[in-house]
Amino acid sequence: MVRKVCVVVTARPSYSRIKTALREIDNHPELELQLVLAASTLLNTYGEVSKVIEADGFKVSYRAHTIVSGQNLNSMAKTCGLGTIEMTSAFENLKPDCVVTVADRYETMSTALAAAYMNIPLVHIQGGEVTGSIDEKVRHAITKLADIHLVSNELARQRVIKMGEHENRVFDLGCPSIDIAHSILGNTDLDFDPIQKYGGVGAKLDLSNGYLVVMQHPVTTEYESAREQVTETLLAVEKTNLPVLWFWPNVDAGSDGTSNGIRSFREKQNASNFHFIKNAHPEDFLKLLYNSKGLVGNSSVAIRECSFLGVPAVNIGSRQEGRQRGKNVIDVKSNVDAIYDGISKMLSMNEREGEFVYGDGQSGKRIADLLAKVELTFEKKLAY
Amino acid sequence: MVRKVCVVVTARPSYSRIKTALREIDNHPELELQLVLAASTLLNTYGEVSKVIEADGFKVSYRAHTIVSGQNLNSMAKTCGLGTIEMTSAFENLKPDCVVTVADRYETMSTALAAAYMNIPLVHIQGGEVTGSIDEKVRHAITKLADIHLVSNELARQRVIKMGEHENRVFDLGCPSIDIAHSILGNTDLDFDPIQKYGGVGAKLDLSNGYLVVMQHPVTTEYESAREQVTETLLAVEKTNLPVLWFWPNVDAGSDGTSNGIRSFREKQNASNFHFIKNAHPEDFLKLLYNSKGLVGNSSVAIRECSFLGVPAVNIGSRQEGRQRGKNVIDVKSNVDAIYDGISKMLSMNEREGEFVYGDGQSGKRIADLLAKVELTFEKKLAY
Amino acid sequence: MVRKVCVVVTARPSYSRIKTALREIDNHPELELQLVLAASTLLNTYGEVSKVIEADGFKVSYRAHTIVSGQNLNSMAKTCGLGTIEMTSAFENLKPDCVVTVADRYETMSTALAAAYMNIPLVHIQGGEVTGSIDEKVRHAITKLADIHLVSNELARQRVIKMGEHENRVFDLGCPSIDIAHSILGNTDLDFDPIQKYGGVGAKLDLSNGYLVVMQHPVTTEYESAREQVTETLLAVEKTNLPVLWFWPNVDAGSDGTSNGIRSFREKQNASNFHFIKNAHPEDFLKLLYNSKGLVGNSSVAIRECSFLGVPAVNIGSRQEGRQRGKNVIDVKSNVDAIYDGISKMLSMNEREGEFVYGDGQSGKRIADLLAKVELTFEKKLAY
Amino acid sequence: MVRKVCVVVTARPSYSRIKTALREIDNHPELELQLVLAASTLLNTYGEVSKVIEADGFKVSYRAHTIVSGQNLNSMAKTCGLGTIEMTSAFENLKPDCVVTVADRYETMSTALAAAYMNIPLVHIQGGEVTGSIDEKVRHAITKLADIHLVSNELARQRVIKMGEHENRVFDLGCPSIDIAHSILGNTDLDFDPIQKYGGVGAKLDLSNGYLVVMQHPVTTEYESAREQVTETLLAVEKTNLPVLWFWPNVDAGSDGTSNGIRSFREKQNASNFHFIKNAHPEDFLKLLYNSKGLVGNSSVAIRECSFLGVPAVNIGSRQEGRQRGKNVIDVKSNVDAIYDGISKMLSMNEREGEFVYGDGQSGKRIADLLAKVELTFEKKLAY
Repeated sequence: MVRKVCVVVTARPSYSRIKTALREIDNHPELELQLVLAASTLLNTYGEVSKVIEADGFKVSYRAHTIVSGQNLNSMAKTCGLGTIEMTSAFENLKPDCVVTVADRYETMSTALAAAYMNIPLVHIQGGEVTGSIDEKVRHAITKLADIHLVSNELARQRVIKMGEHENRVFDLGCPSIDIAHSILGNTDLDFDPIQKYGGVGAKLDLSNGYLVVMQHPVTTEYESAREQVTETLLAVEKTNLPVLWFWPNVDAGSDGTSNGIRSFREKQNASNFHFIKNAHPEDFLKLLYNSKGLVGNSSVAIRECSFLGVPAVNIGSRQEGRQRGKNVIDVKSNVDAIYDGISKMLSMNEREGEFVYGDGQSGKRIADLLAKVELTFEKKLAY
Repeated sequence: MVRKVCVVVTARPSYSRIKTALREIDNHPELELQLVLAASTLLNTYGEVSKVIEADGFKVSYRAHTIVSGQNLNSMAKTCGLGTIEMTSAFENLKPDCVVTVADRYETMSTALAAAYMNIPLVHIQGGEVTGSIDEKVRHAITKLADIHLVSNELARQRVIKMGEHENRVFDLGCPSIDIAHSILGNTDLDFDPIQKYGGVGAKLDLSNGYLVVMQHPVTTEYESAREQVTETLLAVEKTNLPVLWFWPNVDAGSDGTSNGIRSFREKQNASNFHFIKNAHPEDFLKLLYNSKGLVGNSSVAIRECSFLGVPAVNIGSRQEGRQRGKNVIDVKSNVDAIYDGISKMLSMNEREGEFVYGDGQSGKRIADLLAKVELTFEKKLAY
Repeated sequence: MVRKVCVVVTARPSYSRIKTALREIDNHPELELQLVLAASTLLNTYGEVSKVIEADGFKVSYRAHTIVSGQNLNSMAKTCGLGTIEMTSAFENLKPDCVVTVADRYETMSTALAAAYMNIPLVHIQGGEVTGSIDEKVRHAITKLADIHLVSNELARQRVIKMGEHENRVFDLGCPSIDIAHSILGNTDLDFDPIQKYGGVGAKLDLSNGYLVVMQHPVTTEYESAREQVTETLLAVEKTNLPVLWFWPNVDAGSDGTSNGIRSFREKQNASNFHFIKNAHPEDFLKLLYNSKGLVGNSSVAIRECSFLGVPAVNIGSRQEGRQRGKNVIDVKSNVDAIYDGISKMLSMNEREGEFVYGDGQSGKRIADLLAKVELTFEKKLAY
Repeated sequence: MVRKVCVVVTARPSYSRIKTALREIDNHPELELQLVLAASTLLNTYGEVSKVIEADGFKVSYRAHTIVSGQNLNSMAKTCGLGTIEMTSAFENLKPDCVVTVADRYETMSTALAAAYMNIPLVHIQGGEVTGSIDEKVRHAITKLADIHLVSNELARQRVIKMGEHENRVFDLGCPSIDIAHSILGNTDLDFDPIQKYGGVGAKLDLSNGYLVVMQHPVTTEYESAREQVTETLLAVEKTNLPVLWFWPNVDAGSDGTSNGIRSFREKQNASNFHFIKNAHPEDFLKLLYNSKGLVGNSSVAIRECSFLGVPAVNIGSRQEGRQRGKNVIDVKSNVDAIYDGISKMLSMNEREGEFVYGDGQSGKRIADLLAKVELTFEKKLAY
């Protein structure tokens, strides 16, 4: 009998982190993929990822708008509540054999809760990592709700087991995000013009002599300073005089502060070296990174994909604190000078060498294979 | 400055487990109590605990109906979602300095999530215990969302720390439920007629020659068999020919099965030894236990209050599996013969001796004192 | 192109009132039926109508638990809110060409709102009638949200037009509930034992010498007196010494009062003439009515189906105030004496003659035919 | 006994339309104002009206985030559902004697439903008007839920009565928005610099030689063309070479299209004559209008306040279709040429003469006085 595997995707970065697994599940003879899209995947403001996903050939089984406006802490909580209601109806109608939730964004809790309460075996991808912000609480809480843990490296596996999960339910299969990075190694040429292909606003840049990529998310527990933080980055990056491709942040408490900071900067500064894009295909995004002089910001891409690809990165502030990282990452504080110094240091790094910190690029297939044969249970007890 | 301590109570047993702490918080000069009532506390079907609470002299700061009907797994999930939305509005309007959530019922997750997402320091009471059912997942997930852990005994404290919480945020203060048990030791006489005082349905019993108390909740992950399970208990108890005071179960997936089982039993059997009550004051309930021949069912009262009071108890099935217990508890499987044998064994127990498994009866005061002076934080990281 | 017609059914009586139309839509070559079940159709407490519907051969396209517990006014409002959220997701995933909502129960507003806001043409069945209670407000508000009005008689049609709807969007097609009544005229024999077939609680009755059928709903705007009201009916009916088949009420504010009244009566009185049933197939229910001495209560069945079938009925209190009725209806106040007198009068009625007050029994087919060809629009303006 | 009057404000324009009534209710010795803020009043994106309201000296009794993101039709429906849930909790905790809802925005339905279902007398302000868009359905549906109707002119009063409301529950008290217009007649000087006072983005304009004010909302039932529509207006207004003060639209399905249209225009065009503002005090906004060469767009301000003040206005498209208007309004289609011609005509209008189409400027006081003495009921029946 074919197992119905329901994967809930709620945001652009989650899609990148699960895409190859989706493909392998979809192609697996013993699995049926039920793809649920919710939260910011359906919002135009954040690049309507649902269209990208459909263009990639996935059939969407269920859609649900779940984001409560406000872009502050209250609205995150309400979004989680509304999402839980919606996911319950989704699962009631789809009747999956197991549910897969990805990583630690605040709204992934909805998926975890609905599945746990409904006695549907819950598979959590990317548990056991340590970071700052509300994600930290959410990630470990989902671990305690999940029945099967597919983690990205051995350190994460050890942590999940230490938290009281049973060893035989925790599997180090690597992170599917690395699979995409692995796939572009065959052709790393920048064979498209990002500005033409993805539009966005700002200057038309000449990328041929090198450029920076920036991706900065608000740090939710400090959301009031989101605007200040992004301004520090904007000023530091501007100072380099390099062309800058800037990707807009996700829906998060504070993204309003971040967006306002960017808009305000664009009003007041010349900003003739900046172009702002909402979204790009994961592969294209990675090629942009590969051909850049490096990534600046606080995205986990710096320590995952960039580490594998050997792309240097300046990681700002507390958001990725605690996550395992490779030699490509330069950690800096969130102020103009520190960021600028970090970028200078990054530009002077000569060697690029990829590392296997979050897997070797075969994660998606391993996940599908495991989901086809692993025992699906929904009862568990603390291991100690 | 006075700290606003918001305590959310969602069910009858949670009220018993927090009542003395509520009183101490309310009376503490440096604390202001904000009492929020939600879920089954507001439902008439389950004895409208809100009236009991107000009669006890507490002022209610906020009320919210949060239960989605169904009494099945889907409705538990939706109730959690709706509760999260409601608690967000409650906290937005009450602006507490910290939020206290009690134990591990499924709907307590709503309180935990709303507080965690809103960056309000979250205090969790009764973490670190181990049981069966969905409560197990919920309890540990709340631990991962909570900032301060007030546990009931040293074993629980060790478990919470093992899960990655920082030692200096985990406090063994005992369980406030024991405080009430402690308070009745001054006067243990059965100085009221429970049937006259609390109504209910069934036979008018003569309690003067001894009686049994029964309290059986559905085990949520096995809800379809709830009806069968309660029937086993009903038949075993009937066989004893002792008068039986039976307390209706909480709102839970399966309570419908339990209730139906009881109703069906009443239709078909003579049941002339049974009286069914919805609810009683915690003190009265404990006096009823103290003067009984013992408790039968799967309530945690058996291993908490009864252990302290030395009241023998037959604990049926998996619901309390893993929880620390005293010598007063006889664990049995959920079938007529095993339950009947357990009761026989219980009736032959001669000595009654109280133990301090869940505290010594001073927990409420310790909790209030700690809440007045503990550092309130909302950022944390896994300890390893 | 086949039109997708989404019909939302939320309660047992609504199903009866739309069943023949569902069948005709399902069978119509130019229509595709999308059947959505919500609210009390999914609750076991109210006889889980969803199982009846599936047994009748209908495929359910979407299910959603939407009832917020409380059975009081607040929970009705929240149920409407939750239902609106759920119906939005249902319609987003089903993408119907038009949505059909039936009658005036409080939760039908959710269907109407979701459709209206989503620019989906809304078809309202049974507008233009006048009654007491919150239904009155809801019914006319839905008329103002609906695009196409399928009413049950000419008087209703005139009222809808008077309210400002355009004459060419209001169609008197009769009420589908009458179709079922019409269909049993071919065989009106009581060819089953209702107690054996539908279970329930209470005495095993001998129906061969005549019996009463009772169906009494709480009147929502007077919910506190629901218990008193049902007690009046219970006592009056008991006084007749006739066997009584009593059908439990719907989920409504006050149904708790009604249920409590019934339970309390059963505890205190002998009640040896009463049998209580949750639910029956519409056809069986009508046969039970046809062979009874008459219907007692406040159900609209008294003035719809009973009028067509010529079954006499005692209609109690304000719930059906304002609705057109035939000669079969005896209106009485809600007190023991008035009800008893009404029943006596009813028992002395000799002739039974059916009338066409709510249609001639061909409504379902007319509705399907109209839905296949009517212009589907979602913009309208007050006609004056 | 003082009557608790709960007024729910959900958007900037609703605040303007009720502000003087709020003041009079607040000051009335027999009334207690309970001010509830919800929906876009709490969102920074739309100018966080809540801060304006508090700065005006009103105490906020309850806040609730209710907007579900999406800015499309689905999210409007879900917002209505979430708002109904939230308003139920608000009213349960505030226990008002009556609830006041203003006008016809989609989210006002939540207020109306919660009050109607909870048997709280509902007062509707500004019923009986006729327009295009979903507002039309919502307005009349609220009329059918409301118990007391406070309309703005005699024509509206006649319509409400025709719809079946009882004559003695419909009161023509004028529109409070006119009160503010009336109040600025004492000092109409533009005694502030709007760009300095309210910030915003775009050119620093010299307003001393005349300017246009633009306010254009998306027309919800045509939301896909919102972007096109606003572009027509942008191009037409640009062609005049006059300085333009442009006010951002409300939260509505399509506001995303409108906002995108504006942003895209700003990227591509010089736009050196445009300044964009999110929000202004109602009085300041009216002074800006009074001193302008006229209003362009589709706001109801054109036909309400502008009519009273004699300010000429070009009203674009279908949004205000059906509303009574004065001689100051020039209706045009939504295309560059028609809008440009309309503006030319407007600029050539020499005389300005105020008219009393929506009241004489004493509405707030009349409303407070009526709320203090009117009989508060919640049961009603169609008048025919």
